[in-house]
Amino acid sequence: MTQPSSEIIFLGHCPDRVGLDARITGFFADELFNILDLSQHSERGRFFIRIEGSEEGERQAIQTWTEKFFPIARELEMEYSFHDPLERLRVVMFCSKTLSCPLEILSRWLSGDLRIDLRAVISNHGEIAPIVNKLDLPFHLIATTGERAEFEEQQLRILDRIGPDLVVLARYMKILSGTFLASVRMPIINIHHSFLPSFIGNDPYEQAYRRGVKLIGATAHFVTRELDEGPIIHQDVVRIGHQFSVSDMKQVGADIEKQVLASALRKFTERKIIQWQGRTVVFH
Amino acid sequence: MTQPSSEIIFLGHCPDRVGLDARITGFFADELFNILDLSQHSERGRFFIRIEGSEEGERQAIQTWTEKFFPIARELEMEYSFHDPLERLRVVMFCSKTLSCPLEILSRWLSGDLRIDLRAVISNHGEIAPIVNKLDLPFHLIATTGERAEFEEQQLRILDRIGPDLVVLARYMKILSGTFLASVRMPIINIHHSFLPSFIGNDPYEQAYRRGVKLIGATAHFVTRELDEGPIIHQDVVRIGHQFSVSDMKQVGADIEKQVLASALRKFTERKIIQWQGRTVVFH
Amino acid sequence: MTQPSSEIIFLGHCPDRVGLDARITGFFADELFNILDLSQHSERGRFFIRIEGSEEGERQAIQTWTEKFFPIARELEMEYSFHDPLERLRVVMFCSKTLSCPLEILSRWLSGDLRIDLRAVISNHGEIAPIVNKLDLPFHLIATTGERAEFEEQQLRILDRIGPDLVVLARYMKILSGTFLASVRMPIINIHHSFLPSFIGNDPYEQAYRRGVKLIGATAHFVTRELDEGPIIHQDVVRIGHQFSVSDMKQVGADIEKQVLASALRKFTERKIIQWQGRTVVFH
Amino acid sequence: MTQPSSEIIFLGHCPDRVGLDARITGFFADELFNILDLSQHSERGRFFIRIEGSEEGERQAIQTWTEKFFPIARELEMEYSFHDPLERLRVVMFCSKTLSCPLEILSRWLSGDLRIDLRAVISNHGEIAPIVNKLDLPFHLIATTGERAEFEEQQLRILDRIGPDLVVLARYMKILSGTFLASVRMPIINIHHSFLPSFIGNDPYEQAYRRGVKLIGATAHFVTRELDEGPIIHQDVVRIGHQFSVSDMKQVGADIEKQVLASALRKFTERKIIQWQGRTVVFH
Repeated sequence: MTQPSSEIIFLGHCPDRVGLDARITGFFADELFNILDLSQHSERGRFFIRIEGSEEGERQAIQTWTEKFFPIARELEMEYSFHDPLERLRVVMFCSKTLSCPLEILSRWLSGDLRIDLRAVISNHGEIAPIVNKLDLPFHLIATTGERAEFEEQQLRILDRIGPDLVVLARYMKILSGTFLASVRMPIINIHHSFLPSFIGNDPYEQAYRRGVKLIGATAHFVTRELDEGPIIHQDVVRIGHQFSVSDMKQVGADIEKQVLASALRKFTERKIIQWQGRTVVFH
Repeated sequence: MTQPSSEIIFLGHCPDRVGLDARITGFFADELFNILDLSQHSERGRFFIRIEGSEEGERQAIQTWTEKFFPIARELEMEYSFHDPLERLRVVMFCSKTLSCPLEILSRWLSGDLRIDLRAVISNHGEIAPIVNKLDLPFHLIATTGERAEFEEQQLRILDRIGPDLVVLARYMKILSGTFLASVRMPIINIHHSFLPSFIGNDPYEQAYRRGVKLIGATAHFVTRELDEGPIIHQDVVRIGHQFSVSDMKQVGADIEKQVLASALRKFTERKIIQWQGRTVVFH
Repeated sequence: MTQPSSEIIFLGHCPDRVGLDARITGFFADELFNILDLSQHSERGRFFIRIEGSEEGERQAIQTWTEKFFPIARELEMEYSFHDPLERLRVVMFCSKTLSCPLEILSRWLSGDLRIDLRAVISNHGEIAPIVNKLDLPFHLIATTGERAEFEEQQLRILDRIGPDLVVLARYMKILSGTFLASVRMPIINIHHSFLPSFIGNDPYEQAYRRGVKLIGATAHFVTRELDEGPIIHQDVVRIGHQFSVSDMKQVGADIEKQVLASALRKFTERKIIQWQGRTVVFH
Repeated sequence: MTQPSSEIIFLGHCPDRVGLDARITGFFADELFNILDLSQHSERGRFFIRIEGSEEGERQAIQTWTEKFFPIARELEMEYSFHDPLERLRVVMFCSKTLSCPLEILSRWLSGDLRIDLRAVISNHGEIAPIVNKLDLPFHLIATTGERAEFEEQQLRILDRIGPDLVVLARYMKILSGTFLASVRMPIINIHHSFLPSFIGNDPYEQAYRRGVKLIGATAHFVTRELDEGPIIHQDVVRIGHQFSVSDMKQVGADIEKQVLASALRKFTERKIIQWQGRTVVFH
């Protein structure tokens, strides 16, 4: 959650050393910036920081903050960014046949639960089209039955034109190629089911059923070249019992997936996530 | 969850005594009914039973089952009902300004997560109208600023015409009068926030904030004459921390409310709930 | 939970067919047995039932119930058992260096939380000896550095002499051989950590750390020939954040392991578990 | 969780203003202190900070750190303290007849799960005496049947002699008088059950049963003059169903109470809690 009166969010990470907090917060003090929430964490030689607060002095644009901080960042070898908490992230959603995840995103966008600016829905199936159309949201049906290079080219053209801050795969059931991932310059968040233990191969739900699994989970993660192996953002589980058939398990799985995806998106919109070397720091 | 091949659900409760299971399951055996799931529970002299299964013999209508069982029910002083698991319950939803609960119901209705047949939305505010209208669902704006007797009369006329199986109060913020409750013959499910401990009086979120409460909960219950005191169907909580402002707490509260309400509705549609003397038996 | 006035628990499973509930509950009705709780579940052609209740007629010994039911069981090809809810199961606990799981069992045995009769502790390390000795509980230190056949022989001799109802592996870190498992005639319950997703190979905690895993879980299961692959009894998870170091994760893992193991044992002592073909039915 | 290599923990709070982080972290930078984890939070004009890290320069005693920081604290009107993460807090435990909470503390003390130095157990009942004695821990039986002033005087004498850092009420069932609380200069942590909604008056479990409550919770809090109204440290709940009798509910309640109490103590030993005006800031 962001503080109600926050006006600026700052995220940064750099090699760890003594005095970083003093250097960074000294900059903000000089700018008459009141820090309402600061989280800093160091691990294995890397320093991560998130700051949010209000401008006690004159209001300055994000661009101004970014420029003013640049000399410090260069000195500290820091990757950093400034954000306006009221800015809505532009999002493009990919989906397929399964409706529960995409409908959750639509519903939270409509209710304002998720502070996003949904710009388009891209799907390789038409099931969701009537609802998306009713909501006056651009819908792009791009079949994925033909040549991969061709349909990915079409998807990329749409992304290029919209230039979203984030792509959400809301149960989009087609693997993205390395070429596609190399061309996309915005983060991609994906959701998939998870089991304890995990079941490899065909029909994991049937396998989980046979072992009498008691929990069904979901994992939201950034998409990287390693399929389903990107940095984890959020996870949760739900309890099931022996009376759950395989189809019940799938319904429960869909339910927890949509909740975990929505929570991951909320964390992202609140600028609480830093990715670093296959791992995420997700501030509270 | 109902078993995938279930064709009939039976619910009943009566004074407890030796031999009830044998009497009831004997009836089903004679009818060549295969019991796939049976839960029976006795407490404080009352016997509760839920059965679901498939007809190995000839298919019989719900009405036929109801009539055939009647002599046994009379003998056992049992309240009972038979249901078709594939039948969608007709539901009317009441709401007010807050959108997250009603949108959750709409979204789960659209995705098929909730097996309901949503027939109308009644609200005392117009905020949800554009979405409801886009979904081609009848919307009734009934202001509650005038005489209670008048606007409740309007609401009752709509309910009478539709004759739903269930009324859902999805954050409908107006108290229903005793007269209204006496006239409505279908069950009403309501949702409200819950705190540990509870905070009485104005602005419970502010009070909860001041105590540093760590959990925010929600309770779904049947509506009875005692406001917010009806039999509890489902409850859940979500964890918060000190960094949650009062407005963050309200957002989290809205989130858990919608999930708890949806779960309660699912239990209801699966015919897993028996009400008895201010208490519910909710079968797994 | 067992009903407070329950005097007999019955567990059974057999091939499914129409009329089983009527046949079984008819037997109990004839014996003037009042069924307080009955759960029956059928899946994939197998029928599972658990009954608990009180004897309205004359009290009969477990042995008498077992004999009287035998003809029905033979006819239905049913595996079944009768239990006295007040009987304490005789348990032998195996442990190693890690103390949190064995101490949890000792603590719950002392407080009466777990209705067990702990008969001995067998360990391949001496760390727990002082505490076990203070509690006047037999302690057997059996090193596992020598020949497997020899130390397993020693363990088996102790189990043979005590004849427990259950063996609990409370973080016993030595794999049991197929020979050992073939010789032990009582159920064995084991606990191990679980991750979403699972991490194979050395140091799963380090791997989980690198992916930024957000949940650490534990799974309690029956031990079968397939190592860590037996029927699952209970699972749970606990949430962690980026600020948890690998050693913190291990501590949290130990914590959830002991809770899950204790819950699994409670289910077992309440006679709520039926094993069938690699899967468990765990009644509520 | 504290970072593995942390050598110093700093806690402080003061009136909020611009530049506090810079002022405080500047002090640490000058002392060549490497901040591994920093959490800062401001709310309603109050600034809260927790820092942990390692001394890159010369090791300095807690006392030295405290003295060096004093001028800054005076200037900022800050309440503050420095701690050694390896120091074990001296704890005195109060208990009564109920064993599950005190046994949990004993068990976690023995296993090292809780980094505490348990110095004595004070009880108004003798049930726990045999176990405490076996563990060579001083046990004081102080009956609470006579004059309050007298038995509280006895308790205070023991506390004065030991001078613990913390008193834990592990289901101690006697209300502490205002006089007692005014004389005790160390924090007191208490645990009690919680319901959603709460039930006032006699036998809350019976009332909760009658409403069909689905969650049983527990709240750990600091003890203040307002009974059961002190700042909340930790809360959790566990799910129950209709099949739980009142005595089952009490057992489940005891279970969640002991887990919540242990978690609250862990947070306290990790120096993650700041109390301020009836509210706690509990850092992650």
